[in-house]
Amino acid sequence: MVQVDLNCDLGESFGNYKVGKDELILPLITSANVACGFHAGDQHVMNETVKTAAKYNIHIGAHPGFQDLNGFGRRNMDLTPQEVYDLVIYQLGALSGFCKIHNTKIYHVKPHGALYQMGAKVPEIADAIVKAVKDFDDQLLFVGLSNSELIESCKRHNLTYKSEVFADRAYEDNGQLVSRKKEGALIKDTDQAVAQVIKMVKESKVKTINGKEISIEADTICVHGDGQHALDFVKEIIAQFKSEGIQISAMK
Amino acid sequence: MVQVDLNCDLGESFGNYKVGKDELILPLITSANVACGFHAGDQHVMNETVKTAAKYNIHIGAHPGFQDLNGFGRRNMDLTPQEVYDLVIYQLGALSGFCKIHNTKIYHVKPHGALYQMGAKVPEIADAIVKAVKDFDDQLLFVGLSNSELIESCKRHNLTYKSEVFADRAYEDNGQLVSRKKEGALIKDTDQAVAQVIKMVKESKVKTINGKEISIEADTICVHGDGQHALDFVKEIIAQFKSEGIQISAMK
Amino acid sequence: MVQVDLNCDLGESFGNYKVGKDELILPLITSANVACGFHAGDQHVMNETVKTAAKYNIHIGAHPGFQDLNGFGRRNMDLTPQEVYDLVIYQLGALSGFCKIHNTKIYHVKPHGALYQMGAKVPEIADAIVKAVKDFDDQLLFVGLSNSELIESCKRHNLTYKSEVFADRAYEDNGQLVSRKKEGALIKDTDQAVAQVIKMVKESKVKTINGKEISIEADTICVHGDGQHALDFVKEIIAQFKSEGIQISAMK
Amino acid sequence: MVQVDLNCDLGESFGNYKVGKDELILPLITSANVACGFHAGDQHVMNETVKTAAKYNIHIGAHPGFQDLNGFGRRNMDLTPQEVYDLVIYQLGALSGFCKIHNTKIYHVKPHGALYQMGAKVPEIADAIVKAVKDFDDQLLFVGLSNSELIESCKRHNLTYKSEVFADRAYEDNGQLVSRKKEGALIKDTDQAVAQVIKMVKESKVKTINGKEISIEADTICVHGDGQHALDFVKEIIAQFKSEGIQISAMK
Repeated sequence: MVQVDLNCDLGESFGNYKVGKDELILPLITSANVACGFHAGDQHVMNETVKTAAKYNIHIGAHPGFQDLNGFGRRNMDLTPQEVYDLVIYQLGALSGFCKIHNTKIYHVKPHGALYQMGAKVPEIADAIVKAVKDFDDQLLFVGLSNSELIESCKRHNLTYKSEVFADRAYEDNGQLVSRKKEGALIKDTDQAVAQVIKMVKESKVKTINGKEISIEADTICVHGDGQHALDFVKEIIAQFKSEGIQISAMK
Repeated sequence: MVQVDLNCDLGESFGNYKVGKDELILPLITSANVACGFHAGDQHVMNETVKTAAKYNIHIGAHPGFQDLNGFGRRNMDLTPQEVYDLVIYQLGALSGFCKIHNTKIYHVKPHGALYQMGAKVPEIADAIVKAVKDFDDQLLFVGLSNSELIESCKRHNLTYKSEVFADRAYEDNGQLVSRKKEGALIKDTDQAVAQVIKMVKESKVKTINGKEISIEADTICVHGDGQHALDFVKEIIAQFKSEGIQISAMK
Repeated sequence: MVQVDLNCDLGESFGNYKVGKDELILPLITSANVACGFHAGDQHVMNETVKTAAKYNIHIGAHPGFQDLNGFGRRNMDLTPQEVYDLVIYQLGALSGFCKIHNTKIYHVKPHGALYQMGAKVPEIADAIVKAVKDFDDQLLFVGLSNSELIESCKRHNLTYKSEVFADRAYEDNGQLVSRKKEGALIKDTDQAVAQVIKMVKESKVKTINGKEISIEADTICVHGDGQHALDFVKEIIAQFKSEGIQISAMK
Repeated sequence: MVQVDLNCDLGESFGNYKVGKDELILPLITSANVACGFHAGDQHVMNETVKTAAKYNIHIGAHPGFQDLNGFGRRNMDLTPQEVYDLVIYQLGALSGFCKIHNTKIYHVKPHGALYQMGAKVPEIADAIVKAVKDFDDQLLFVGLSNSELIESCKRHNLTYKSEVFADRAYEDNGQLVSRKKEGALIKDTDQAVAQVIKMVKESKVKTINGKEISIEADTICVHGDGQHALDFVKEIIAQFKSEGIQISAMK
């Protein structure tokens, strides 16, 4: 039976600032990427998020990012590979603390925002992230953009990887995401977006923005949990997957 | 044979700012309290500090503090017990990440600065710290001010504790440290300071600022590693301990 | 004619985190207290907030707080008077930069959260804040809790002050606010709250939680702008003030 | 008579971390670039630095940088021009607060580290910085790398600029600094470095790393104040300038 994982970024509140509908999205997904206090999240939010994910038996993943709360970790920072390595270790460790007290563990790691994007393109950054994850725990699953340098680095380092795809993003002929700055980068039509993921999951193929059909691995689908529209979209994916015989289950 | 541990705060540099003579003090001590990035230290400093301590086979301890880099964690902050609990878990976790990659582990926990002082006096804060340490790993040793609420809390929570004493600080009749704001709080004469610790270690007694002799437990002595004077003082303690038959060895 | 000012805390968003309904509350009030980047607000939020306030001709005030984004400036921090002085100067300066580029100016200063509360009770902290404001610009109006040490300090330093009252908070016999931890601290009934402010404005009196009538100065009323309920409450105050012949105008 | 300014970065300590020999370098220079709390410096350090500079009658300049204390503002950050604009306004404002209380003013602005380097190369970043400075106070002098986009932007915006040169850095044929990563980027020989600045000041020329002679404007020379070697080097420059008839005076 065809299987796929649904992952979502969670625990992005900070102090007095509340964002996301973590309680509503958690029961729908199989993997939760938890912010680790650098680009979002704080100690208390991490504690609550891990507790809630554990309650729903959702697999917890670390979601490390640049130390840039003001930019939400979405601004490229010119760090050395060593600096990237160190910040990943720190954040994995911090999250593992909350996993320990709730008798659960980190299952996977997915870098956040600019760290994810830089890692997807720059081999040295990808290697720094992947090496940190492997040194921390070589049993962790690594979630990276399908067809990207992050995946290539996992192959080089012999770390188990899971290719991530996006329902609502258009793809270039080389398998990269179409930049948000380009026309057509976002797929706004729900039916079209759902059709895209079904094709990716069942056929391992996607039609690019230029109409070309290319290969793509789809181990996990990134979904969003903020706002009613996002929640409805996830529910629609789940419904369609059921009728297509696609089973949603956590990455292994 | 009488034994005692020598502990020192380390890894307090941050980015471009270098402090302490970690490489010089490490070979002299048995326990290193490593800053965890909140009041001092950063990811890279933590990585280097753990690596160096592991190289010298020094026992690594977590040294969590308030999130107040500007005040070096020395300013009281009015946190709830839950907030204290969460920040201790976060910092223990972060440090454990660096221990993992260097194949070592956290042996003990000693709170830093204002967190240590508040915990020594306020039972609710002491309980929050001690509970966090125990929930994280109940095999950790807890280092707290001798005769303080931190030690009382360890007794309540059945967590192994080690009483810390200071060579160069005067004591009140109730076993507390004389406030730095008071005349005579600091013992500046080396011979007097060394004599005080020898008495504490061998007789479990100390003469207070008022001349009274009180009981004190001395499992570990806090020494400083910044500056030539501090290093010389540590060497003097070690020399005198040798002639007194006091063995310096890590806490167990 | 009886006059009173309505002030509201604004510009409390930060990076990706959006809070408050600044655009909706601004047209209703006469004084905007703008967060200065320490407990809330960032450079961009400050720029936008000052621009919008200037557009509506609302008087801009500085709203400096402790450097504690995670605690939203609501946790007491044990700073020295000099440290308090320095952080007030820094934040006043930063806000004045945005006032300059929008051809407006700072009219008043109201400390935020824990800084306000500590200043209201501790003369040394009050003096540090008031002295900073006066040194920065002795034409600024100082907004402090009615009957508090902040007002006393303004008298000592000969700085023009404005006494702030709260519609929805109960008062102790000594004129202080009833602690939020106590039963009855918050006045939840709209009619009762509006009646309280009308009495404070027209008669300079308030009935305390114990039923005693005490004197209180009411130059400005603190209102909230987050949520529909808060906005409705402000509109109710404005409507009732109109029928009572109370004019709402900015502090002078 | 030939005149030139000597500028130095100051006020780079932070909390417990002390760096630089501000008291020793201040009497030797004519312009002090004061860190504004983002990449270095804190409120108290700024207060002390401005006070000391005012005491010595040294012209104070703002030295704004990226909000990256851990990287000391030396790591490129991918900010939008608006974000750059906002952070410059904030830091200029903050510093002006301390100038006000010490009855002095900001005379010039020199961006720090990565902000300086990015501005020197990227016209949009240069424009954002220059526009912020001009909007804040169009009488300020702008200090930028000679022959760089920062200077071009000042010309476009009609803001008075001063070209900065370095004694101890080699130049490329296009007038840019040789990257520190390249062999020969640093001129370690004191005589050679002093000869280079004298040539730049008297002839407006410099011999590049390839031996070519190019034009260069030299309004102000960047010197360093940390360490005895740096201080000796500044004294050597001053002595040689005297015998060459070059007068050291603040930029006008």
